[in-house]
Amino acid sequence: MSETVTLLVDPAPADASGDFAATFREVDATEPAVRVGDLAGQRGDGVFETIAFVDGHAQEVGPHLARLANSARICELPEPNAAQWRQAIETVGAKLPATGEFGIKVILSRGVDRGPAPTAWITANPAADQTAVRTQGVEVVTLDRGYARDTAERAPWLLLGAKTLSYATNMAAIREAHRRGADDAVFVSSDGFVMEGPTSSVILRSGGVYATPSPSGAILHGTTQLSLFDHLAAEGRTVEYRDIRLEELLAAEAAWLVSSVRLATAITAIDGVAFPADLAETAGFNAYLLTPRD
Amino acid sequence: MSETVTLLVDPAPADASGDFAATFREVDATEPAVRVGDLAGQRGDGVFETIAFVDGHAQEVGPHLARLANSARICELPEPNAAQWRQAIETVGAKLPATGEFGIKVILSRGVDRGPAPTAWITANPAADQTAVRTQGVEVVTLDRGYARDTAERAPWLLLGAKTLSYATNMAAIREAHRRGADDAVFVSSDGFVMEGPTSSVILRSGGVYATPSPSGAILHGTTQLSLFDHLAAEGRTVEYRDIRLEELLAAEAAWLVSSVRLATAITAIDGVAFPADLAETAGFNAYLLTPRD
Repeated sequence: MSETVTLLVDPAPADASGDFAATFREVDATEPAVRVGDLAGQRGDGVFETIAFVDGHAQEVGPHLARLANSARICELPEPNAAQWRQAIETVGAKLPATGEFGIKVILSRGVDRGPAPTAWITANPAADQTAVRTQGVEVVTLDRGYARDTAERAPWLLLGAKTLSYATNMAAIREAHRRGADDAVFVSSDGFVMEGPTSSVILRSGGVYATPSPSGAILHGTTQLSLFDHLAAEGRTVEYRDIRLEELLAAEAAWLVSSVRLATAITAIDGVAFPADLAETAGFNAYLLTPRD
Repeated sequence: MSETVTLLVDPAPADASGDFAATFREVDATEPAVRVGDLAGQRGDGVFETIAFVDGHAQEVGPHLARLANSARICELPEPNAAQWRQAIETVGAKLPATGEFGIKVILSRGVDRGPAPTAWITANPAADQTAVRTQGVEVVTLDRGYARDTAERAPWLLLGAKTLSYATNMAAIREAHRRGADDAVFVSSDGFVMEGPTSSVILRSGGVYATPSPSGAILHGTTQLSLFDHLAAEGRTVEYRDIRLEELLAAEAAWLVSSVRLATAITAIDGVAFPADLAETAGFNAYLLTPRD
């Protein structure tokens, strides 16, 4: 048992099948394992997923691998072999403790500059303690994302909708939120539509209906949001994908940021103004999200 | 003498002085040298510069290090120690052949996730043969950058104006150009202003005056463009920084993409329409740009 696991993965062609154990090599996370010429580090040129591992179960592996494949397609990377990644995730999971929460990160890079093949690795680390944000919520600020709502359709080379390693802006947005005394951010399009958080999806409840911004090319499709919407729909609630203007978020009954490892966290303030948080419903969301999900 | 040099650099505080040799460690570029947890590869979270090394001379080291410092400031990374980087560049240069063209890449990463310190490295590789693009020019397509002209001022968390490792979009833009049968791209703001190429600055000549888009926060200040403008001004030509609408570029007498390693390349077509290239003037630009410059 180890709390930290790092596995280098030699990416197999998408149509390869069988046992992929020979394509994995465990390394010590404190040892150098990547060349300086790898385009992941040189240009943020690759895609990734973060998968929660809760009490021995990797959550939503199928949707995460589907999104990884979609990101790879947008970035014109070779299609990842889902069977190989499933086995890699199982291999990592078998080394982790059977209780507790971990984050498993899957990275697929374009590979070494001028090299012929992509590189890949998978890491597992203990998740930070999420108790406070899950039970008390987060204060957010709204930040202009710079793009208009329809930009992805017009300019696919901007790679909106792909979860790429070019994440410096997402991290800068969180720093800006901290600078303003908040915990996190909600990106708003230049034409006033709610988009997503830097590392999360946005869900609001309005008139008893749950809504999230339409999955357009400009927004990452949230695996946790999707799982929660499936759960809510199964319970008979109404869920909607549609355009949401900032004014609607500000007037909502409740709203959440949801993501794979932190799960659901209620928004308690927006731009310094208190916002109604439904902490009881948040607890219910997280109770569901902590159950084994595929 | 080696054609490829890789030096790991242990970043010194900005105010440290003296001999930094003990902070450098040469490694083989084909060997792993970076941890998987390094934020350069995990999130494109770092900054870089590419410096031309021509016949034994590193070009424009001062302006490149000034821009690196500016990028670091925008990204809230520790200020790089210019003396240490100068020595690192000299150390690399001393190992390179005295003739020929090389690209020296300086990378400053936020460091290992949850780690306390930034990481850094510097690499040198032979430049690709630039003869064809310097003498025959490039065909470009115009691509919407998605942002309005004034976005950087409004939204500094987008890190526009910093040369970050989050470069996946720049690479995708060049792939899009190739897909359309062109060699390179010119980004245009969503409100119709010429910005820059994915890895170059844009200069045009109109009425005998040389102009480049105003160095606003949304455009990377071009070191090669600046050097060329200094040269042109010293020769008595008029150079201007100002807003340039796409229509003006399309109507210009000549236009160039300029960058550190490729140097000046004349634009010979825009969006599939032939464009007047001044190849004689381009040759003059490159003759100057290949002389030792500081």
